[in-house]
Amino acid sequence: MTHHRIYNFNPGPAALPLAVLETIQATFLDFEGTGMSIAEVSHRSRQFEAVLDDAIARTRRLLGLDDRYHVLFIQGGASMQFAMIPMNLLGEGDSADYVNTGTWSTKAIKEAAIVGKTVKTVASSEDRDFRYIPKDISFSKGAAYAHITSNNTIKGTQWAAMPDTGGVPLVADMSSDIMSRPIDPAPFGLIYAGAQKNIGPAGVCMVIIRQDLLDRVPKTLPSMLKYTTYSEKKSLYNTPPCFAIYAVQLVLKWLEETMGGLEKMAEVNEKKAALLYDLMDGSEFYRGTADPDSRSRMNVTFRLPSEDLEKRFVAKASEAGLGGLKGHRSVGGCRASIYNATSLEAVAALADFMRTFEKENG
Amino acid sequence: MTHHRIYNFNPGPAALPLAVLETIQATFLDFEGTGMSIAEVSHRSRQFEAVLDDAIARTRRLLGLDDRYHVLFIQGGASMQFAMIPMNLLGEGDSADYVNTGTWSTKAIKEAAIVGKTVKTVASSEDRDFRYIPKDISFSKGAAYAHITSNNTIKGTQWAAMPDTGGVPLVADMSSDIMSRPIDPAPFGLIYAGAQKNIGPAGVCMVIIRQDLLDRVPKTLPSMLKYTTYSEKKSLYNTPPCFAIYAVQLVLKWLEETMGGLEKMAEVNEKKAALLYDLMDGSEFYRGTADPDSRSRMNVTFRLPSEDLEKRFVAKASEAGLGGLKGHRSVGGCRASIYNATSLEAVAALADFMRTFEKENG
Repeated sequence: MTHHRIYNFNPGPAALPLAVLETIQATFLDFEGTGMSIAEVSHRSRQFEAVLDDAIARTRRLLGLDDRYHVLFIQGGASMQFAMIPMNLLGEGDSADYVNTGTWSTKAIKEAAIVGKTVKTVASSEDRDFRYIPKDISFSKGAAYAHITSNNTIKGTQWAAMPDTGGVPLVADMSSDIMSRPIDPAPFGLIYAGAQKNIGPAGVCMVIIRQDLLDRVPKTLPSMLKYTTYSEKKSLYNTPPCFAIYAVQLVLKWLEETMGGLEKMAEVNEKKAALLYDLMDGSEFYRGTADPDSRSRMNVTFRLPSEDLEKRFVAKASEAGLGGLKGHRSVGGCRASIYNATSLEAVAALADFMRTFEKENG
Repeated sequence: MTHHRIYNFNPGPAALPLAVLETIQATFLDFEGTGMSIAEVSHRSRQFEAVLDDAIARTRRLLGLDDRYHVLFIQGGASMQFAMIPMNLLGEGDSADYVNTGTWSTKAIKEAAIVGKTVKTVASSEDRDFRYIPKDISFSKGAAYAHITSNNTIKGTQWAAMPDTGGVPLVADMSSDIMSRPIDPAPFGLIYAGAQKNIGPAGVCMVIIRQDLLDRVPKTLPSMLKYTTYSEKKSLYNTPPCFAIYAVQLVLKWLEETMGGLEKMAEVNEKKAALLYDLMDGSEFYRGTADPDSRSRMNVTFRLPSEDLEKRFVAKASEAGLGGLKGHRSVGGCRASIYNATSLEAVAALADFMRTFEKENG
């Protein structure tokens, strides 16, 4: 059976690998021979535990995590983490450093203040509308952690390399670039990522936390807001979002077995991004909004000569089966989100469309 | 295409209507002509907003809610609500009443204490292992709210009628019986329900809150823990669990259009429960654990003459295609969860199996 499918450049929820969707569809009435849907099966069944164990094992392999790291699945998205991180990791008298590189960093800083914790913005690119990633940052000696947003979905910037924090544990919101490239986990104390961009559907957030940070968690927090609740019960303290975790497992399997791991995935992602950035760099019509050394491989943000042309571009692209190209409502312009599951073929089709559109409207 | 399907008596995640599963499966690669899966579509698309609006409208109609009530979708399950309710509704100097009818009530009381709020257990059935629903409760004049668990999944008890709180707003955890029978919403200030028993898959909690309780919410809470964040942005402040909300919408549609509403649903649920309770009452072999006047129409808990026989019963039932009959690990015994989506046919098959098993092992 063939279905109408578009090329999906949505910023999140975003494209999922077609093979993953087809597996979910094929097994939806009978998951692993249980005679039940994945949406009906007990979270305490051996079949679901196998899903969870496999998702955790694949995450460890893909990111090269040693035994000190725990892989947790928490609800509420990255936005819930903005509050949970300072609540869990900042004790009496502690302070944390934050780098502000856009909308999501700004929100993380705001939520830390709401929960009554002391955080210091040690660098910001707000002076130029977050078009770049700050360099040569002085992190505070003795900071409890240093927080960054590794990729900025809205502004289209990305840390090309992680900053040197001088030993302060790095905490990173990787919602929009987790698993898009290999990382060296050594500097990280905590990594979190809402699944709905690179690793699954909306409804689950992956949190990777190192044992020494877990040791800081106060006993006085509500059970559902305490990382130890999840680490001690393997994310099964209460009913987890089973469907979303299953989809994440299938995406990680696809990453390992079909794409061949993160080195290979990063090569494809580089090629995809280059197709669009090279086109823009050779054009007077399309203008990238991020500084070249800060450009994101995941979210390519650009402007056209006028807002009318931008509207026309998004509408015509949609008619041509290229969806989700409108920039975030807070910044306008255009944006192509080209996460892992957006194929080279899809990006090539977009580049072709852009060339044709420029000829006809330039 | 036919699939292997069992009769599912799981306590949660639990059975979903087959028609709902089939709709999800059929549309899984192309949701509403978008050329994207429901797992890929933007939460800000008109197609997803239509899902959300429809789920809210159906909830209002099914429960007879007037304009003072807001229908919210929040992540973290009922367990997150155990903390959010006192955080949002109890101000300086306020106190709330709680009735303790089992495991979940006990947890709700515990979490209220963790967040530093004053709550009073005004009645409890712990003296007889939670086999009954307390009667003639004296609620405190001036309590900020009175909390009950309307159905106790683990102990198999249910409030036949709501208690008279003397005007104190009732707050109810209806995770395991929401939409199983009509209610008079008048006494309720807040109703909450993890979806995974009666109205959908795991991963979303429905919260219904009345305006006067919403007015109490302090501005100083983290955004994701504040009911006003959800009421002001129609549960779209951040990315909601789109798939789970879509499934809830389809279940509510099935409730209204296929089952004919809550009066009709309650009739079917009464019949299902009577099949099992009548059988037990006429048997020396099966022994119901709840007091007759406190029996749940959703979770039928019972014991057999010995633990060996209980093990054998669960195993043989599973071989016969009747799944999920083991009692909760904290109490043992057997339990048949017969939520809305478990058909009369399924319950009749279980009753037949029980009669045969008694003959062969009695």
